[in-house]
Amino acid sequence: MGKITEYSKEELKQLEKELLVKYDEYVNAGLKLDMSRGKPAPSQLDLVNDMLGALDTYTTESGLDVRNYGVLDGIPEMKKIFSDTFGIPADQIIVGGNASLNLMFDAMMRFMVFGTEGNIPWGRMDKVKFLCPAPGYDRHFGITECLGIEMITIPMTEDGPDMDMIEQLAAEDASIKGIWCVPKYSNPQGICYSDETVKRLASMKTAAPDFRIFWDNAYGIHPIFEDVEVLNILDEAAAAGNPNRPLYFASTSKISFPGAGVSFVAASKEMVEEIKNIMTYQTIGYDKINQLRHVKFFKNAEGLKAHMQVLADAMRPKFEMVLNKLEEELGGTGLLSWNAPKGGYFVAVDTLEGCAKETVRLVKEAGVVMTGAGATYPYKNDPKDTNIRIAPTYPTIEELEKAMEIFCVCVKLAGVQKLLDR
Amino acid sequence: MGKITEYSKEELKQLEKELLVKYDEYVNAGLKLDMSRGKPAPSQLDLVNDMLGALDTYTTESGLDVRNYGVLDGIPEMKKIFSDTFGIPADQIIVGGNASLNLMFDAMMRFMVFGTEGNIPWGRMDKVKFLCPAPGYDRHFGITECLGIEMITIPMTEDGPDMDMIEQLAAEDASIKGIWCVPKYSNPQGICYSDETVKRLASMKTAAPDFRIFWDNAYGIHPIFEDVEVLNILDEAAAAGNPNRPLYFASTSKISFPGAGVSFVAASKEMVEEIKNIMTYQTIGYDKINQLRHVKFFKNAEGLKAHMQVLADAMRPKFEMVLNKLEEELGGTGLLSWNAPKGGYFVAVDTLEGCAKETVRLVKEAGVVMTGAGATYPYKNDPKDTNIRIAPTYPTIEELEKAMEIFCVCVKLAGVQKLLDR
Repeated sequence: MGKITEYSKEELKQLEKELLVKYDEYVNAGLKLDMSRGKPAPSQLDLVNDMLGALDTYTTESGLDVRNYGVLDGIPEMKKIFSDTFGIPADQIIVGGNASLNLMFDAMMRFMVFGTEGNIPWGRMDKVKFLCPAPGYDRHFGITECLGIEMITIPMTEDGPDMDMIEQLAAEDASIKGIWCVPKYSNPQGICYSDETVKRLASMKTAAPDFRIFWDNAYGIHPIFEDVEVLNILDEAAAAGNPNRPLYFASTSKISFPGAGVSFVAASKEMVEEIKNIMTYQTIGYDKINQLRHVKFFKNAEGLKAHMQVLADAMRPKFEMVLNKLEEELGGTGLLSWNAPKGGYFVAVDTLEGCAKETVRLVKEAGVVMTGAGATYPYKNDPKDTNIRIAPTYPTIEELEKAMEIFCVCVKLAGVQKLLDR
Repeated sequence: MGKITEYSKEELKQLEKELLVKYDEYVNAGLKLDMSRGKPAPSQLDLVNDMLGALDTYTTESGLDVRNYGVLDGIPEMKKIFSDTFGIPADQIIVGGNASLNLMFDAMMRFMVFGTEGNIPWGRMDKVKFLCPAPGYDRHFGITECLGIEMITIPMTEDGPDMDMIEQLAAEDASIKGIWCVPKYSNPQGICYSDETVKRLASMKTAAPDFRIFWDNAYGIHPIFEDVEVLNILDEAAAAGNPNRPLYFASTSKISFPGAGVSFVAASKEMVEEIKNIMTYQTIGYDKINQLRHVKFFKNAEGLKAHMQVLADAMRPKFEMVLNKLEEELGGTGLLSWNAPKGGYFVAVDTLEGCAKETVRLVKEAGVVMTGAGATYPYKNDPKDTNIRIAPTYPTIEELEKAMEIFCVCVKLAGVQKLLDR
């Protein structure tokens, strides 16, 4: 089609006419498809069904009965799998419940009520701000917003968030208490933080002594096309003399079962103590039966890694489908730009300025629900209204193909109408 | 032995000599037994092992795949079982994770950070106080203490906490924000709140508009000798025009598996909305697979009730053993008083004043760890040093018999030495 952004008014009008015909066909076809969240497909979940019958004992190696009370911070076998998988010493890991999101929320609540390292609780300060690389994960921004913490949007680069901006802000404003990071295959862009980015985050000067990095490594072992190495923030922060700065989160939500997986938070030994000193009032301990179930199914870190390859093989055709469709339909048109993620759960695209909301609206009218435009930004406010998150995993490949056809037509339609409006 | 409290000095000295001989035998026998917590026995847990293989489907009746994301407040089938069992409308129930303790902690944290019904968050007030009926559950007091909330000890009567004192304090002090209640087979005394107690709690005037009753019905369906009816605080509070006052908690921790059960919080519809409005940032949802596992095993409220009868039959001999031993060894001696609980998990006893700590110390020296004396009071401070909690469930009946022999000798020894000290 060539570069549509350079079409004449007449060419645009003709194209709009053709697109509207196609679009009306989609609307009339009455498709119903929900692509709004990063949900695994039922076929992915089938790959772990056997876990539910994997318990062949009720006791850990040390003889602990997982059916009974006891053990605040997780059974040793589960810790070891996380430790070996993520390269974190087992004594810096606290195994949690069914979701790392809950651990993040709880961590924020602790900082609000108790503070950290003896500093004033955040909830007693007049103003608390947080750095929010965007596009990012809407639920991070949700936690921050509900606590009344002011969010500062940080643009993303292909090496991670804009470190010049972060360093300047963190150094000069003591009310900035932390930053949200999805360091590997980021949600939604699939960006992997460069070594320099990680090192700068670990070592930068912060005006707040209790500045905290919420390191949500949600996709840390989720390669699809290539397994990228990202530096371990705990190691880098310790080496830079800021051991207590990062809180490292991950879970098996997108490995075993969303809502029935196992999560963890890791930190310096000092921070682990601080967390446990409060956590001991919150719970007697998380679900150890489910931890042992995971241990029995995955066996060890190698078993877990092998499972991730099986998952990657299952997901790859869907990502290829999305990327091929985008290239076929929109490559070179000037209407859409996107990254090709090497792993993770999403493909993020950028429309012409001011076209994201309209595109998502058009797609929805045609029966496909996508993540709301703007949802990937603090306050759901994408200042240029360009970013859209595509979540390819849940639909079948046939549904996905249909959805992508509709999506591409809608991108064009919204883009062409925008160009005509100029 | 007659009334030991009326023995002459010589008689006491003779008895002390005999007791010390016995006691030394116990110490030398080198027993090791932990009776410190209200833990189910492995034989109780065996009764629910089949739950772990009870899943015969991954979908709820409405077709929801419990393996995937979705449903913040619990699957309908689990809500229905709780609703039918506890007599609470399903739409006033939020199903939680593996422990009601966690739901209570989270509720407290929400009140600290967000407040309730538009009132000032408790964490922003200079002073917050809580009414703590005691002896009570140490973990309630732990939550309160860690949040810096001042605890006011309320004595227990056989009808529940001292309502005259509660009404007076709640009416005159607006910094008193709530009360902890274990209304049925209370921990540790096994007291059941009378109808009048529940009605007065529901209807009393409180200076604080956001006064909250934390109604921890932990043993609501745990009869051992007799199933006592306790009024539903949600109904009574609604009838008295204070629908938002109670938060009602329970779980299957002592029904299925401690740490791998299912909990709930119930409240007025308005409070349920308030809770969910924050909870939606905290979690995408709790473990629905485990909820369905419970549903498949118990089937319905009748199934759950039948299971509780099986559990009661398993536990009754242990409670009988404890009560018989106390009567045989200490009845009429004047050294110990106790209640005979109709259900629950504990037997609470009162020694002579100033003898509880010493008794528990002596018992520990002889190899039996009991709940620390004082633990059942705010700040671990039992003002008269009399209360000891006996947790009969975990040991085998043979171990329990031995432990009770030791306990009774230690009660006598500590009592006799106290009398000699006068």
